[in-house]
Amino acid sequence: MATYKAPVQDMQFVLERIVGMEQRLAGIERFSEVSDDLVRGVVEEAAKLIEGSLAPLNASGDEQGCRLEDGQVYTPDGFPEAWRLFSEGGWSGLSQSEEYGGQGLPFVLSQVLMEMMAGANSAFSLYPLLTAGACEALEKHGSAELQATYSPKLVSGQWSGTMCLTEPQAGSDLAQVKTRAEDAGDGSYRLNGGKIFITGGEHDMAENIIHLVLARLPDAPAGIRGISMFLVPKFLPDADGNPGERNGVNCANIEKKMGIHAASTCVLNFDDAVGWLVGEEHQGIQNMFTMMNLARLGVGNQGLGICEAATQNAIAYALDRKQGRPLARKGEAATDTVLIAEHPDVRRMLFTMKAFTEGGRVLAYEAAASADVAAHHPDDETRQKAQDFVDLMTPICKAWLTDAGCELAGTGVQVFGGHGFIREHGMEQFVRDARINTLYEGTNGIQAMDLVARKLKLHNGRLINTYLDDIATFISAEKGNDALAFIVQPLGEALDGLREATERVREALGSAPDDAGAAAYDYLQALSLLAVGYAWARMARAVQGEDTAFARSKLTTARFFARRLLPRVHGLLPAIYAGADELMALPADELA
Amino acid sequence: MATYKAPVQDMQFVLERIVGMEQRLAGIERFSEVSDDLVRGVVEEAAKLIEGSLAPLNASGDEQGCRLEDGQVYTPDGFPEAWRLFSEGGWSGLSQSEEYGGQGLPFVLSQVLMEMMAGANSAFSLYPLLTAGACEALEKHGSAELQATYSPKLVSGQWSGTMCLTEPQAGSDLAQVKTRAEDAGDGSYRLNGGKIFITGGEHDMAENIIHLVLARLPDAPAGIRGISMFLVPKFLPDADGNPGERNGVNCANIEKKMGIHAASTCVLNFDDAVGWLVGEEHQGIQNMFTMMNLARLGVGNQGLGICEAATQNAIAYALDRKQGRPLARKGEAATDTVLIAEHPDVRRMLFTMKAFTEGGRVLAYEAAASADVAAHHPDDETRQKAQDFVDLMTPICKAWLTDAGCELAGTGVQVFGGHGFIREHGMEQFVRDARINTLYEGTNGIQAMDLVARKLKLHNGRLINTYLDDIATFISAEKGNDALAFIVQPLGEALDGLREATERVREALGSAPDDAGAAAYDYLQALSLLAVGYAWARMARAVQGEDTAFARSKLTTARFFARRLLPRVHGLLPAIYAGADELMALPADELA
Repeated sequence: MATYKAPVQDMQFVLERIVGMEQRLAGIERFSEVSDDLVRGVVEEAAKLIEGSLAPLNASGDEQGCRLEDGQVYTPDGFPEAWRLFSEGGWSGLSQSEEYGGQGLPFVLSQVLMEMMAGANSAFSLYPLLTAGACEALEKHGSAELQATYSPKLVSGQWSGTMCLTEPQAGSDLAQVKTRAEDAGDGSYRLNGGKIFITGGEHDMAENIIHLVLARLPDAPAGIRGISMFLVPKFLPDADGNPGERNGVNCANIEKKMGIHAASTCVLNFDDAVGWLVGEEHQGIQNMFTMMNLARLGVGNQGLGICEAATQNAIAYALDRKQGRPLARKGEAATDTVLIAEHPDVRRMLFTMKAFTEGGRVLAYEAAASADVAAHHPDDETRQKAQDFVDLMTPICKAWLTDAGCELAGTGVQVFGGHGFIREHGMEQFVRDARINTLYEGTNGIQAMDLVARKLKLHNGRLINTYLDDIATFISAEKGNDALAFIVQPLGEALDGLREATERVREALGSAPDDAGAAAYDYLQALSLLAVGYAWARMARAVQGEDTAFARSKLTTARFFARRLLPRVHGLLPAIYAGADELMALPADELA
Repeated sequence: MATYKAPVQDMQFVLERIVGMEQRLAGIERFSEVSDDLVRGVVEEAAKLIEGSLAPLNASGDEQGCRLEDGQVYTPDGFPEAWRLFSEGGWSGLSQSEEYGGQGLPFVLSQVLMEMMAGANSAFSLYPLLTAGACEALEKHGSAELQATYSPKLVSGQWSGTMCLTEPQAGSDLAQVKTRAEDAGDGSYRLNGGKIFITGGEHDMAENIIHLVLARLPDAPAGIRGISMFLVPKFLPDADGNPGERNGVNCANIEKKMGIHAASTCVLNFDDAVGWLVGEEHQGIQNMFTMMNLARLGVGNQGLGICEAATQNAIAYALDRKQGRPLARKGEAATDTVLIAEHPDVRRMLFTMKAFTEGGRVLAYEAAASADVAAHHPDDETRQKAQDFVDLMTPICKAWLTDAGCELAGTGVQVFGGHGFIREHGMEQFVRDARINTLYEGTNGIQAMDLVARKLKLHNGRLINTYLDDIATFISAEKGNDALAFIVQPLGEALDGLREATERVREALGSAPDDAGAAAYDYLQALSLLAVGYAWARMARAVQGEDTAFARSKLTTARFFARRLLPRVHGLLPAIYAGADELMALPADELA
């Protein structure tokens, strides 16, 4: 059975020594009481809750799944109780405003929490993810009245939230949304239509479920600029704000899925459902991106959580299971079996897992801490620079970390050999649970398009230029540091590659957009490898000269990444430069 | 729901025009009646059976799984009937000797059949795979008496076969096998012990199950050279050769697995089970490799089958589903949605799938046809050269094709977006079924070690040298062919890379074996990419100048592979050269 232990030491190392959280948040009023000590306490408390209450429900939740009976969804045994502990502990509102009863702690801490939840119990982690998105959208765009009624209960976890976007004909393409909303003349609206793939659309863990629904008003322009956002509660609040009359939103079905069985994925029907407009008419897509962008960082952390879980279980198994002897000890007696961790090819797998996970953690936490700076720092320029970084990193965190989740879950199964395929070991569940992360909140292909077609262009290329310049500055600063040359040199080569690739992709955007589209995914991969390489360079720099097991592990893994994985950038560049001609030339009907 | 249509046109293209089967088998007595026409007929008949009888049971078999009741395993609805059709049609004995009632057709045809079965119904395909292995082992190593009793019924599919190797402590490391066999003094033996992961170890599709079991005799030397092979039937044949008394072999449990739910994976207990020695005492491992090597090619074809199935379903979906507009058509009205096949990034996925699948098919069929030549050609030198090729290609087909199966199954899910995660679409089943192929018959890590530590050394490097020289000869011959330069040039660069990599790995084998072990997996990847590149170069050469949809698709995909995927070789070389120092330096207990 797979287990989960939060990697508290590494989490704190990244927060304190790589992200430099205390310094970055200094000067921000909202976080004036946040110190490394406080953060450490929060991280340790979160670890206790999650290891003790969520991890034990992971396998059983997967096995049992959700059940729909007479329109009511029942989550697996223990889930309602776990949700209660989670809410009562204040974890639901960890980074929400104190105004609504939240703890007002940095968003980055909620992302550390998300990583832990996803590593311990990916299915569970979806409910808080969506609820946090709803809080955010309400806080940014909701009327004072809506906020007063709904925000405190969402923040406390008494109620939960959803994002109702997808319809059968409208997945990646929300311009196709057909759900209708009509003004009821009393300040409320009536919604009619159907939504699919609604995570947490119906369940038994919270008293009420608050849906944020994309729909069209009768006079709405066609396409993406004609969509509005509505708040539709499962139960209409009564005069005291408690769940009252049942609203016209019903769960018609729950999907049978590859994984995250304990997360209900609902088909919702809206039949004259009562709702309220959130924000302005026809501004639903922009409002939705308020939820979506933070949710994308959250999904990246879900990928990271699976990376960590697969890695720690694979390492534990490799330190327990004995089979054979490596080539170097071929001559020894057949009875002298060694730990599989002593086989070079198994070490290759374990170090790949460590390198991706620990390197990815820097990406994730740095983006999240920057989101805190971008949201709350008093200095305009500091805020803007942080926002630039968040914007650039969001598609990378979402796509690369979740691709890594899938890859490492697969590698984890390989380390277990045939036993990895057997359900009781829990490794195959990671493979099944990991896959949703590459699909929802915008497929990873969509992330690549966002990176190339939007983020590279924003502010005339300032986002990527600044980022590449930052790496160049680091490289220059470390030029004379011989002990770091092992990574600084290949980092420089990768940087040169990405400079050229960025230039070419940017040119293509103007002159041959299909070329940019064809390059997008490989470009995202290459930029991600550079970013992880930069992360490893800084981690190696941070522990340089230290002689602890932790420092040795960091330096060894940094070397592994620098010498074996970072050079893959150069294998991707030709694909970025290849253009789209052959790709698009073939008539579609000749593909088959 | 996923469907399966055998890619008959491409299969025949590869057999006739790339492998050149008719020419290669010319002069082989056993195959004197095999012509392209006959092959075409067989392939088309196989396609009919498999599309009609196996494909419809794939999803239901997965859903239902196997059931153990009072020691008896029941396969899902329809499986016994499908097995009957399969056997009665003579498919079970397709490439088995006519002496035992087989059809005596080339092994390569059984591999085409295997690809189809795995694409249509991976779980089903395991039963024939194991049965064929048992036939092979008996034919090569069994006594005349054993052959007379068992071979005809295994060949006809009346009875099925298993390979009983793994024990809890003995997975990759068969030296640790503990099952005991004692001479009963009457020509038979009594076996005691337990085996795990026995595919088809118990089921309800055949009248009898014939286990080939690795066990130790009392006087056996320790380790791998003390293991013998025994034949242990589920029912002891009576005087007429029909299933008689129940033997002391029992199914104690069946595993709950990630995928291939319709294939029973059994824990077998041997309690004074009656068995007979197959081959010589203590030669069990060598005998086992008779089964194993062909089974490894078979598993490669299972990977290929999943590649094909994922690819064809992804293409069909991309030609049906409309979402959004590519960058190049950004300005158009939001209602003008296009087929997702018109998005460059979706095409990238589809072409990657096509390039791996169709290129991999050449590897698989060429290795299998060479196995026919190696087994039956009258000329010693021809046989030896073919055997060299089979030996070199076996780990590549097994590991690369099955890794590709996992990757492409994942890509197939991506093409479907969120719908790929929903069970009813069938794409997620490919992900779950594909993974077993990278694990059994030697994990893919073991294949990499076989390639590097055994195949590179055999006959002083002759296998790899000959192969690389063959590619060089092709490149020289096509130097002046401008229309082929798009692939010949990168193929040459990849070849240069592999020459150097091979040299370095070979040196390491003598001087620093851990370096070779650390390089093995990346070396296998790089060599596989070269091999697939060589396949695409020959396919492009074959259709050069033709103006059909088939030729256009081949040339476009060849270009895609040459420009975008083949260069990945250069991203892998640094990992091959990196050595094992940092990998092995860290004490195992500092990994965690």
